[in-house]
Amino acid sequence: MVVAPDSFKGSMTAPEVSRHLAAGVLAVAPDAELTVLPMADGGEGTLDVLLAAWGVEAREVDTVDAIGRSHRARYGVSADGRTGVVELAAASGLPGVSDVALQPLHAHTRGTGLVAAAVLDAGVEQVVVCLGGSASTDGGAGLLTGLGARLLAHPPATVAASTHDGRAGTLVPDGGEGLARVTGLDLDGLHPRARQVRWRLAVDVTNPLVGERGAAAVFGPQKGASEADVAYLDAALVRWADVLERETGVRTHELPGAGAAGGVPAALVAVLGAETEQGATLVAQAIGLPAAVAGADLVLTGEGSFDSQSLNGKVADAIGALAAAAPGHPPVVVIAGQVLLPALRSRAAGIAAAFSIAPGPMDLDELVGRTPSRLTEVAASVTSLYLGSVRG
Amino acid sequence: MVVAPDSFKGSMTAPEVSRHLAAGVLAVAPDAELTVLPMADGGEGTLDVLLAAWGVEAREVDTVDAIGRSHRARYGVSADGRTGVVELAAASGLPGVSDVALQPLHAHTRGTGLVAAAVLDAGVEQVVVCLGGSASTDGGAGLLTGLGARLLAHPPATVAASTHDGRAGTLVPDGGEGLARVTGLDLDGLHPRARQVRWRLAVDVTNPLVGERGAAAVFGPQKGASEADVAYLDAALVRWADVLERETGVRTHELPGAGAAGGVPAALVAVLGAETEQGATLVAQAIGLPAAVAGADLVLTGEGSFDSQSLNGKVADAIGALAAAAPGHPPVVVIAGQVLLPALRSRAAGIAAAFSIAPGPMDLDELVGRTPSRLTEVAASVTSLYLGSVRG
Repeated sequence: MVVAPDSFKGSMTAPEVSRHLAAGVLAVAPDAELTVLPMADGGEGTLDVLLAAWGVEAREVDTVDAIGRSHRARYGVSADGRTGVVELAAASGLPGVSDVALQPLHAHTRGTGLVAAAVLDAGVEQVVVCLGGSASTDGGAGLLTGLGARLLAHPPATVAASTHDGRAGTLVPDGGEGLARVTGLDLDGLHPRARQVRWRLAVDVTNPLVGERGAAAVFGPQKGASEADVAYLDAALVRWADVLERETGVRTHELPGAGAAGGVPAALVAVLGAETEQGATLVAQAIGLPAAVAGADLVLTGEGSFDSQSLNGKVADAIGALAAAAPGHPPVVVIAGQVLLPALRSRAAGIAAAFSIAPGPMDLDELVGRTPSRLTEVAASVTSLYLGSVRG
Repeated sequence: MVVAPDSFKGSMTAPEVSRHLAAGVLAVAPDAELTVLPMADGGEGTLDVLLAAWGVEAREVDTVDAIGRSHRARYGVSADGRTGVVELAAASGLPGVSDVALQPLHAHTRGTGLVAAAVLDAGVEQVVVCLGGSASTDGGAGLLTGLGARLLAHPPATVAASTHDGRAGTLVPDGGEGLARVTGLDLDGLHPRARQVRWRLAVDVTNPLVGERGAAAVFGPQKGASEADVAYLDAALVRWADVLERETGVRTHELPGAGAAGGVPAALVAVLGAETEQGATLVAQAIGLPAAVAGADLVLTGEGSFDSQSLNGKVADAIGALAAAAPGHPPVVVIAGQVLLPALRSRAAGIAAAFSIAPGPMDLDELVGRTPSRLTEVAASVTSLYLGSVRG
């Protein structure tokens, strides 16, 4: 059997959820061969899940936060040294700057670039970047500058003539306000290993970089952008994407997923050849879940709310797809704080069944308090039914 | 598969619960061989469950209620004419006299005796009497009088000498107040078929007739008996049991279960040779559930609250025992409004798993409103997991 839940957002981490589910399985089947692989969807908690799967401690590096203040951030390198993982939220996250007023035009991802540089220094072959939780709308410009790139502004005449020297010009400030003036990109100072490694971006949205469904329009407001700011940032992102296209030949304006984390994928796809991937699938591969599911008879997963979002590239969706592709088609059961999806829709996504941990009528606070014991109870019931069914 | 739930007390009848569960099974497994047998535990709703299983309509007869007022009561006779069923609550129930003040010393079961006489007139071979919901503490004296017996009081001298003619003396009034004076029992007028049929009493308590755990002490207060009334009624039941023992040779004072329904089993066991049985087991036999469970691969049952009472001779307990005794040991799953029992305790009672219909945090009113769709959803999930497990 495999136990591979997501966290219950706001109440319990994935390793904690895993522990309580595993206790239920083992209460009924003490001799079960149980593989416990806490999961994540590329968002909050992903670094810890990968560290746990790799059996390594977090590393730390001095960097800056989303508004440039000194900050220390965690990151990870796998036990074999081949894979590094960077959580954008660890350096450049919105929670890190919650002590001051939001600065939607100034916030940036330079700190994440500094962390990524540390990962490259460690000699990895691939870098997993977990997007999500960002404070900025800088099109990934900050991440590039953290890796040694320079964003420059040139006088209008030289730009129009396209004859300017890309390395001249003046540095633009960090954040969207810099993109609004950028005309060139100098990559001479880029970290020497930046273009030698594989960059994998865990993305859980399909929004394009610019336009009505773009990074500024859809995610700007939650980072403090006014209506006018959104228009300003969207124009800035268009300008930045134009520069990227001119410098690299890669057009990212309409790229699905480029709108994640304030547009970070745009810069990394254009300049570093990064790939965007569904976060849950990427994490599953990184922790060896496909092989575990392929060899399992029953798979338990879970998350706080099992709803229509869950089948949209989240953990349950990724595991359902793995089970459907596995030779034995092991049944996948979701154990959730709340279950909002009809059974037939779950089934169509490869989820055999979904059960809530709620034991009856109960308010949210009480249910959260009883989550540990209820996870164990429902896991025990599911295991018991599974064993009874197989035996029968 | 078998669907055999109890009612959800206060919100849904067993046939309704069955329908919603069956819809969930068939949504996932349209070709399933499905046997739907709504269940009951010998209490409220048992008559309707037996009528449905037999495919017959209820019959009706003029009788009296628990305080002697004219009343019309339903009863049933099986399609083959061999089994009759009488619900004590239908004639002599507490709800039927809720319009007046409780009369704990006067209330009686004569009306149920009149219904039983109609059942005997129909020519049945066995009579199932569903106890529970009674308003009275009359030791079943009323039921006997309804069938033609007479309870008599004799002058003290003749009683003491034990030389009196049992058929003389004066009639005592109905109810516990009559038992307080009874000295003799005249059975000459008893219905001629009363001693020719098998009487099966559906009982769900093990209380004795008299004493601290007896009918008066434990159940008297909920029928309106004061502390003094309880003492009076307990003494009256002792007197009545003495008379029964003298007339029949059968001692019922301490008989387990004789304390049910104000002591009804005492009279029926002593005079008519009745057997007390666990209600749910009796109903299961009457509707053919043992054979259905023995041939099933999966059994779904349900009830409003799955708690410690449920494993005490109620529907889930009876079905768990049937499944444990069946050759294939089909897994039994309880789907309940609330689940209060730990999984391991359920499992020890032959219940593979129990799931609440609650989809998450939710108050009682909302959950009751969503019970139909949630029954269907959880039944679909259980069926899906079962099928996935078997296939895997």
